[in-house]
Amino acid sequence: MKNILVAQSGGPTSAINATVAGIVEMAKISGNINKIYGAKNGIQGVIEESLIELNEILKDTSDVDLLYKTPAAALGSCRLKLNDIDKCENQYEQIIKVLRKYSITYFIYIGGNDSMDTVEKLSRYCKVKNIDDINIIGAPKTIDNDLVETDHCPGFGSAAKYIATTFSELERDCSVYNTQSVTIVEVMGRNAGWLTASSALSRLNGGIGPNLIYLCEKDFNINKFTNDVKEKLKDNNSVIVAISEGIKNSNGQYISDEVQSSVKDVFGHNYIAGAGRVLEEIVRKEIGCKVRSIELNLMQRCAGHIGSKTDLDESKILGMKAFQCANEGNSGVMVGIKRISSNPYKIEFVTTDIKKVANLEKKVPLSWINSNGNDVKKEMIDYLKPLIQGEVSINYKNGIPEYMNLY
Amino acid sequence: MKNILVAQSGGPTSAINATVAGIVEMAKISGNINKIYGAKNGIQGVIEESLIELNEILKDTSDVDLLYKTPAAALGSCRLKLNDIDKCENQYEQIIKVLRKYSITYFIYIGGNDSMDTVEKLSRYCKVKNIDDINIIGAPKTIDNDLVETDHCPGFGSAAKYIATTFSELERDCSVYNTQSVTIVEVMGRNAGWLTASSALSRLNGGIGPNLIYLCEKDFNINKFTNDVKEKLKDNNSVIVAISEGIKNSNGQYISDEVQSSVKDVFGHNYIAGAGRVLEEIVRKEIGCKVRSIELNLMQRCAGHIGSKTDLDESKILGMKAFQCANEGNSGVMVGIKRISSNPYKIEFVTTDIKKVANLEKKVPLSWINSNGNDVKKEMIDYLKPLIQGEVSINYKNGIPEYMNLY
Repeated sequence: MKNILVAQSGGPTSAINATVAGIVEMAKISGNINKIYGAKNGIQGVIEESLIELNEILKDTSDVDLLYKTPAAALGSCRLKLNDIDKCENQYEQIIKVLRKYSITYFIYIGGNDSMDTVEKLSRYCKVKNIDDINIIGAPKTIDNDLVETDHCPGFGSAAKYIATTFSELERDCSVYNTQSVTIVEVMGRNAGWLTASSALSRLNGGIGPNLIYLCEKDFNINKFTNDVKEKLKDNNSVIVAISEGIKNSNGQYISDEVQSSVKDVFGHNYIAGAGRVLEEIVRKEIGCKVRSIELNLMQRCAGHIGSKTDLDESKILGMKAFQCANEGNSGVMVGIKRISSNPYKIEFVTTDIKKVANLEKKVPLSWINSNGNDVKKEMIDYLKPLIQGEVSINYKNGIPEYMNLY
Repeated sequence: MKNILVAQSGGPTSAINATVAGIVEMAKISGNINKIYGAKNGIQGVIEESLIELNEILKDTSDVDLLYKTPAAALGSCRLKLNDIDKCENQYEQIIKVLRKYSITYFIYIGGNDSMDTVEKLSRYCKVKNIDDINIIGAPKTIDNDLVETDHCPGFGSAAKYIATTFSELERDCSVYNTQSVTIVEVMGRNAGWLTASSALSRLNGGIGPNLIYLCEKDFNINKFTNDVKEKLKDNNSVIVAISEGIKNSNGQYISDEVQSSVKDVFGHNYIAGAGRVLEEIVRKEIGCKVRSIELNLMQRCAGHIGSKTDLDESKILGMKAFQCANEGNSGVMVGIKRISSNPYKIEFVTTDIKKVANLEKKVPLSWINSNGNDVKKEMIDYLKPLIQGEVSINYKNGIPEYMNLY
């Protein structure tokens, strides 16, 4: 009988716990697992020996199901990046010591870029040290959808569904008055515009959706933006603009920095507002109509009540696949998704050498952005649409969703 | 056979269209109504003779049902307040001329304070002019929940459910890291704190909810706030604070104005940030831990996908009641809700002379706020809890909610 360890890392998503649910379900089915440990706060919890027994907490199928639909990282998360192996061997020795103490043979780490870096370093350390009885597997998770070697990432589809739904509702709200207005909606994404692009899905049922969409992959020019908005105002009372938080000018400088570098806040600090807020001020000054900026903020990554069933199901299966992968003796790999076709939507679950994944970023192809740089093309819609399909059956209690606490 | 006219005014809500659905359904059942007109953009659309025929658009039960669950004002809205009767009789003459032209005998106006002012003035004008064959009825609607003579207002329950759900999800997101952080969430409400108080409902399933709640009814003191936060950080890694956008100091000055009156933005204008953003800067300076501010912004009033069934059902019945009221020959009244008991939740639908409603504001009783001024008491929870119960069955299509367009 073997013991396994699961941990979560990086920013929370609505689908990250579904992967844990998949691992637990598969481990229970396998019949060769004794204890399923979870580390609190990612690799930090491993180092600090802060473990809980998931098999004790998740006794019934209903517990596992509730965890599946619970947003944010139920095990807690961290931002700790392991030191280079040759620089700080102590850290690795400590991790292996804890894994040995709890007789862990499979360690599955769920997260984004930094987490895959941890999987890569730790599995490399084991190889160097001839430790061949601990299998280390990475499972992808990030709302940013920027991991390579997987068609898309768990967490992204649910965030995209929240964004598409919210834009379809904002469109109705912003158009009720018979006067001109501009609404600028800032979406997460410093370097990858996948989430911002999802705003276009609000058009699927006949809505206009955002009138303008600016992704951080394309240089952003303030004058062009102002002209685009003026142009749209000729035909629309209400103009809605979707922008990535990370839009940059042609020098690679964030728009918020370009405009604000000289502005001091009330305490004399450099004032740091988001790109949306900066563009709001520009529209107010240059166009003069009613203008508002909105940040979707944390809601876009934790709104479990509007999760995508496709996303959560895939996330769960990736957890099962990760377990299976470890159980078959693999180590130093990430499980992922390969798309066979978009319509009908067909995928396969695959594995990749972790070296091909760690520290790389997948951005939106420029060919999926229109030539004006202010909208996305059909290729993007075809890619995104399957990922937001299906609704999760939420357990409502007292009028609000019931979620699972692991500790 | 008679014709009726419906219009919507003020800020959109998730429940305002349910009232229209109730009016249309009841008018169809009554058998004595020929045409059901809707005015675009409220009383503005009446003045400008911009009417649509709802009986043509809402042919089937399924159309009425889709309208019931569609957020924002499907007829469009306006912010127009009628002039005083003695100052500008023209405006009233024009309205009556349009009502006559379309043989309107019942006019139902759905909205908040300003809309009830319109109902009051218009029904008074009719009385003065001995126009006794046009019945004018007000139906309440406001997420602010600040109308008097009704226990609560349609739209509020759905906004409260969104807020409670969002706080329960933010709590999970903000607590994943093992480091200290403060999250300040700004909720709508310039003069009434009902919406901010709803954040406490996130505790119903065992959550901590917001650690601190500040309503705009109580004087806000920045030093006390900073001390409250420091105190909470002793026992909690993640401290979440709910504030009304309209929190004011003991001089009645908005906190945002108190702090920022000297700050200029990049264009030399007085910089206007919300209270949340201002408090974020104060926490950053005075406490120094990780801090973030979030505005729930328009999402809290248009998130139809998480509407309260209790709210939408009551809103629909108020529409039916408004029709019935007009059909029985009443005019110059508002329909409303009287609470019989909270547990079990029992209400009656009532009518009130519009003179008792117009231009008044219902605030949170100070006795429902704790003595420290940083949380709400059990009386508030008992009042709020029934209003967020039940979920609306949303028609999802292509992964996003399907909603109704009237034009």
